[in-house]
Amino acid sequence: GNDPYPTRLARTPDLPWLQRREAVVKGDAGQGPLSADQLERFERQGFLFEPGFLNAGEVAALRREMSSLMNTPSFRGRPFTITEPDSREIRSLFAVHFLSRRFRQLAEDPRLIGRARQILGGEPYVHQSRINYKPGFKGKGFNWHSDFETWHAEDGMPTMHAVSASIVLTDNHTFNGPLMLIPGSHKVFVPCLGETPENHHEQSLQRQEIGVPGEAILAELIRRHGIEAPTGAAGGLLLFDCNTLHGSNANMSPDPRSNVFFVYNRRDNRCQAPFAARRRRPEFLAHDPDREWTPDL
Amino acid sequence: GNDPYPTRLARTPDLPWLQRREAVVKGDAGQGPLSADQLERFERQGFLFEPGFLNAGEVAALRREMSSLMNTPSFRGRPFTITEPDSREIRSLFAVHFLSRRFRQLAEDPRLIGRARQILGGEPYVHQSRINYKPGFKGKGFNWHSDFETWHAEDGMPTMHAVSASIVLTDNHTFNGPLMLIPGSHKVFVPCLGETPENHHEQSLQRQEIGVPGEAILAELIRRHGIEAPTGAAGGLLLFDCNTLHGSNANMSPDPRSNVFFVYNRRDNRCQAPFAARRRRPEFLAHDPDREWTPDL
Repeated sequence: GNDPYPTRLARTPDLPWLQRREAVVKGDAGQGPLSADQLERFERQGFLFEPGFLNAGEVAALRREMSSLMNTPSFRGRPFTITEPDSREIRSLFAVHFLSRRFRQLAEDPRLIGRARQILGGEPYVHQSRINYKPGFKGKGFNWHSDFETWHAEDGMPTMHAVSASIVLTDNHTFNGPLMLIPGSHKVFVPCLGETPENHHEQSLQRQEIGVPGEAILAELIRRHGIEAPTGAAGGLLLFDCNTLHGSNANMSPDPRSNVFFVYNRRDNRCQAPFAARRRRPEFLAHDPDREWTPDL
Repeated sequence: GNDPYPTRLARTPDLPWLQRREAVVKGDAGQGPLSADQLERFERQGFLFEPGFLNAGEVAALRREMSSLMNTPSFRGRPFTITEPDSREIRSLFAVHFLSRRFRQLAEDPRLIGRARQILGGEPYVHQSRINYKPGFKGKGFNWHSDFETWHAEDGMPTMHAVSASIVLTDNHTFNGPLMLIPGSHKVFVPCLGETPENHHEQSLQRQEIGVPGEAILAELIRRHGIEAPTGAAGGLLLFDCNTLHGSNANMSPDPRSNVFFVYNRRDNRCQAPFAARRRRPEFLAHDPDREWTPDL
């Protein structure tokens, strides 16, 4: 076909990866809030970490809201609530900007929208939102992956005009499973082996095995670029390109690790039919820019 | 009974932990090779890290020997060869000082024996030896545990007169699952819940679930003392007390992580009947000071 980013292949392709076609940063510094230097770092590394993005009061309010959402009995056992593979602990809660007014305000905060607009060079909407919660000792890791690979294959996102904003709601340190990234990996697309099974998200959101680059390719990218894991106090903002390879280890500490994620996609990059799956994933994972979502409780 | 370190209990004890009875360092600096300052740090923290203990040539020779042992076909599928829980990759190889002349020389190296004698205050013998090998991407972690808890419960080691010497044979960094320790945890004994099943080692050496302190207790010890993970170049020596709580995370990098371990026990502390298991574990896990072990190939 003429898909520029073929993936979920039946056999090993000739090339380990393809060059990315789209520019990374499509706006400029003139509009603010990000400086030319910050945009240059995002362009080169595929991510930008801003410590102290939210103040302590904002963080405290968001943590209370997160706790309230995670303890809402009617959310238990619902498809948008994902538990750990080996326990009943909540691992992720999706569509939080539709479940909570406070998270919606945050998703629409001009400081975030402004950054997304600068990077994407156009109007952003929230393609996906979620809280990831990694409980002390029990929280497992995430294998290395590109989010775009999944969104392209399973949600029908055509091109790389999306950026994730992750705000850490707990202090992030070496031992509670911080997000790790491969800087520079966003400039290549790594086709993955293996056809997408039916209802793949029911498995992959607990432990992803398909849509994961081969080990030899990962090894080569890490040898070239290394691994970075921004850590620091709650309230830090990590912006990362939709195609930056990232993962995380298990939480070996008693301290839970939680983040809230908003994925901003450019309106003219809205999702179509999936590129490598039979059916689109449910809407709580991939929102339509012109449709409200409700949990149907 | 009159066991000073009761564990594998059927119900939660009144106290979360018991004070350790034995001194930690039983020798002194006069004899060398460790200085008074090094011994003081070992006493206080329960471990001591010495970067550059072996030179590059020694490390290269040991890595070749390790590779040769791990690729010996007749060792595959043998009880002393432990594979990863989810794959056929080798995770640990035991009794290496009986399988290899070179590792035996290392176990008997005066630099190691001298350190062990200083710490133990008496004649050491090798209670256990092993290589741990954590392959790139695939190597899983180890839950938090005290080795003494297992050796006491399952091997019949009476008291805390043992020390582990671990030499890293690969560079250890934040991302390849380095050993983590809780400094100061060696001064208390944490009784663990749950009776020892038959042939427990067949499970526990892959993924330990019994003989692991409760999460509330771990959390309290980590809040008091923190976590440390000595990292650095191949050839570094980590000495740690038999009762220091330690664990490790999975290997998220392409770089394998491997260590060789020798456990030195004081001869007058040789093992008796197990304190909390029906039968002793096989001899490849717990050697008799007066008996050679052979793999019976």
